[in-house]
Amino acid sequence: MLKDLTITEFLEQTASSEPLPGGGCTAALNAALAASLTEMVANLTIGRKEYQAVEEDMKEIAQAAADFRKKLQNDIENDARAYRQVLAAFKLPKKSDDEKNQRSDAIQQAFKTAATVPLGVARDAINIMDLAARAITDGNPNATSDGAVAVLAARTAALAAAYNVKINLSAIKDTELVAELTREIEELEQQVIDKEKEILAQVNV
Amino acid sequence: MLKDLTITEFLEQTASSEPLPGGGCTAALNAALAASLTEMVANLTIGRKEYQAVEEDMKEIAQAAADFRKKLQNDIENDARAYRQVLAAFKLPKKSDDEKNQRSDAIQQAFKTAATVPLGVARDAINIMDLAARAITDGNPNATSDGAVAVLAARTAALAAAYNVKINLSAIKDTELVAELTREIEELEQQVIDKEKEILAQVNV
Repeated sequence: MLKDLTITEFLEQTASSEPLPGGGCTAALNAALAASLTEMVANLTIGRKEYQAVEEDMKEIAQAAADFRKKLQNDIENDARAYRQVLAAFKLPKKSDDEKNQRSDAIQQAFKTAATVPLGVARDAINIMDLAARAITDGNPNATSDGAVAVLAARTAALAAAYNVKINLSAIKDTELVAELTREIEELEQQVIDKEKEILAQVNV
Repeated sequence: MLKDLTITEFLEQTASSEPLPGGGCTAALNAALAASLTEMVANLTIGRKEYQAVEEDMKEIAQAAADFRKKLQNDIENDARAYRQVLAAFKLPKKSDDEKNQRSDAIQQAFKTAATVPLGVARDAINIMDLAARAITDGNPNATSDGAVAVLAARTAALAAAYNVKINLSAIKDTELVAELTREIEELEQQVIDKEKEILAQVNV
């Protein structure tokens, strides 16, 4: 699993002439980093007398962020796996008409999965941004900059994921599905850009 | 060393209530990711007949990006170490006047290092963006989105590093140095925002 590589190994494998891990994996990793930093801001607030009024809220943020972290560290792998399935589908036999149809279906299915994984990362990144905003507003002010970095990482996660959604959508023939997912990912892109500006405008470091 | 942690461990340690690794480490990691993805785009171009005209340029990009990757994966640790030195300086004895002066000098020196490390990360991130732009323009178009993700990661690296530069500058008493580094980091922030927009406007995925 890619999440079991050391940082050094992950960077080396990204840098190599193998296409995996690629930009989609960096997207998921950034979403996981955003979740982790949000969790840290909440954890640096919990259990301190001066922040008792927000204790329950911070526990909720820490738990939600931890759930996203654990999910997204697996999405690093899921993104790579989806791409490998696309490559595998292209290698299926295509002699008979039956084989051609089966191969074509497998390719289409693989591209759908390859679009859906980063779409999920982009959705999660927006939700993490909202958690980070709450942690910045009410959490320990000594960790405000860590919350701000969470927001920056979430933006990169969502916009990076959007590239990967669009690439895979461009190969899908189901025009209704393509139109629907294109609309959703473009909305997410705009949301993430607007939200980042709005949240970081409130951060004074 | 933080670069020797697995991705899972790095995320867990970031999430914990310990302040390290924090946002400054995420900044350096993102710069290293940007370098790695740039290197990959170049590596996916090198050695292919159809891109022979840009072969030498791509080798230069791959080499420069690899140098940044190796430097920046160590800056994850350097950022954490600088913060630990600040904490250590505050714990120095302060009974006699001599001790007070030595402690004060050590604190100031530690904050300078803690500002300088992320400043270096921000400078590197800009240079990596320029390399990524060249790789996107002339490299293998199948890897364009990976180059775009490199640009997104470099923006997060530079802006995240800028927060950490400013926090540490706010504790430094040498007003001339503070003015100089504030001017530089604010210029870098504007550059990175402008460059990202400019480069990504040319990317059609």
